[in-house]
Amino acid sequence: MLYHSINGQFGGIQAPDEGLLDRGLAYGHGLFESMLLCSGTTALQNQHVERICRDAKKLGINLQPSILHDYLNDFQSSLNSHKVEAGVIKLMVTAGIGGRGYQSPDSISPKVICAYTVLPDSLSEQRAKGIKLWRCDYRLPQNPRLAGIKHLNRLDQVMARREWGSSDYAEGLMLDQAGGVIEATAANIFIRTKQGWETPLLSEAGVAGVMRSVLIREIFAAENIAPSIAAIPLQRLEDCSEIFACNAIRGIVPVVGIAQSSDLRSAAISFEIGEQTRSLQNALTQRYPCFQ
Amino acid sequence: MLYHSINGQFGGIQAPDEGLLDRGLAYGHGLFESMLLCSGTTALQNQHVERICRDAKKLGINLQPSILHDYLNDFQSSLNSHKVEAGVIKLMVTAGIGGRGYQSPDSISPKVICAYTVLPDSLSEQRAKGIKLWRCDYRLPQNPRLAGIKHLNRLDQVMARREWGSSDYAEGLMLDQAGGVIEATAANIFIRTKQGWETPLLSEAGVAGVMRSVLIREIFAAENIAPSIAAIPLQRLEDCSEIFACNAIRGIVPVVGIAQSSDLRSAAISFEIGEQTRSLQNALTQRYPCFQ
Repeated sequence: MLYHSINGQFGGIQAPDEGLLDRGLAYGHGLFESMLLCSGTTALQNQHVERICRDAKKLGINLQPSILHDYLNDFQSSLNSHKVEAGVIKLMVTAGIGGRGYQSPDSISPKVICAYTVLPDSLSEQRAKGIKLWRCDYRLPQNPRLAGIKHLNRLDQVMARREWGSSDYAEGLMLDQAGGVIEATAANIFIRTKQGWETPLLSEAGVAGVMRSVLIREIFAAENIAPSIAAIPLQRLEDCSEIFACNAIRGIVPVVGIAQSSDLRSAAISFEIGEQTRSLQNALTQRYPCFQ
Repeated sequence: MLYHSINGQFGGIQAPDEGLLDRGLAYGHGLFESMLLCSGTTALQNQHVERICRDAKKLGINLQPSILHDYLNDFQSSLNSHKVEAGVIKLMVTAGIGGRGYQSPDSISPKVICAYTVLPDSLSEQRAKGIKLWRCDYRLPQNPRLAGIKHLNRLDQVMARREWGSSDYAEGLMLDQAGGVIEATAANIFIRTKQGWETPLLSEAGVAGVMRSVLIREIFAAENIAPSIAAIPLQRLEDCSEIFACNAIRGIVPVVGIAQSSDLRSAAISFEIGEQTRSLQNALTQRYPCFQ
């Protein structure tokens, strides 16, 4: 039995409200995926399910991939029957109810939420014309045990995203405590220098996105390029000839500028959209037309 | 309008479920306080409200202390009218609904949840006989911007708490990435060495608890002791003559042992319950009898 009140309204002696007791709300004990719904089907569903199952295990949450696929397929069918065929599907998994304080229950019964929202604005325009990044003052903490996982502890991104209001900047560039480039607020980053293509090593901070992994394994490979995964100091961005952001909603989006933030004295940087970025975009959309 | 499903049950074309869209669940964009309900009143209510209002501002959430007091007082009256006069009141504040992805809404309308649960077991026994700490392998990340705040991103504590199952250990001892002592999983730590009393500096990691602050400002002062707030390397615990954990539910709990964890080769340490720890306990319960 749980007594509670919400914004001053007493909940009486009702049965527990599941949402209030959920470990996802209490501690961020859970994970999520943002997936592109396109022509009635979910892009990269296998990769998303595989990733969330793999990472959930690190948080003590055992998921059956087949059950997630069933839930997603049913959800997609329900959406289609409501004539909803494009948008974003957010898959959220929490550790559910139970345990004592921080202590997890002996057996975690996950809660699986599928939620639909409309597509973000100006997707096609961003893919065609590129975006600018705000260089965030907020630095990501280094945490090898949680690095790479798209868990529900996302205050770092929330804090970074509070730094700018202008719609000129679609994303923020995030550095770690040591000043290394890690990612954009909601996307991964690839850069091209004289040494070739590189993407930040995410062993201590950042989210290892599904699109990042698809690009490395399939799209760069199709172009006969092997991007290196490495620590990237901020200064290296000044020497790069191409740079793009990627995620599982937007695909590949060229970066055409990085703005100065308040604590860094260097000037804003701007970039042309490079030919290899265009080739990679084409290779991606040939294989996965949803990202056209 | 939000389409959703929970564990495979389609939510139809209903109005948005507030819980699913809440930024507390989505990102851990919020904070909480755990307060002791004792003889029908909430111990240290002023200090808890003051702390959550101060820290909420750092997350972009503006709270009116008077509204929180109204909610808490009303909740307490409702509990009393159900003959509930002892237990734990959890006050949770989230950034509510809105914004676009990580971006906060222009104006945050916080959601304030009060929830009652029963007292944890063996409070009196822990205060009298002390507790043992598990030395956690999981290390806290260093993050100066969020350090000290009791926010809803608590995967660090969840991960650390997963390391032991035995009820022999009431708490885990948590170090930062550099090996410095920060706190217990759900309590702050004070140690006494030849140099006097010390408690870890929490400028880069840890939660600055309400009881820690009450002890420093009022209880140590009443005993004519000025504890120093400093970086504490793990090795210093081997030289300390007294050590205790504290939080706003348990008050002061002596630590009588620290167990060896898997990655540290040093032996387990044990402690006697010191006379100054007993004096501090007495001083606390004289001023705040709830922690008797």
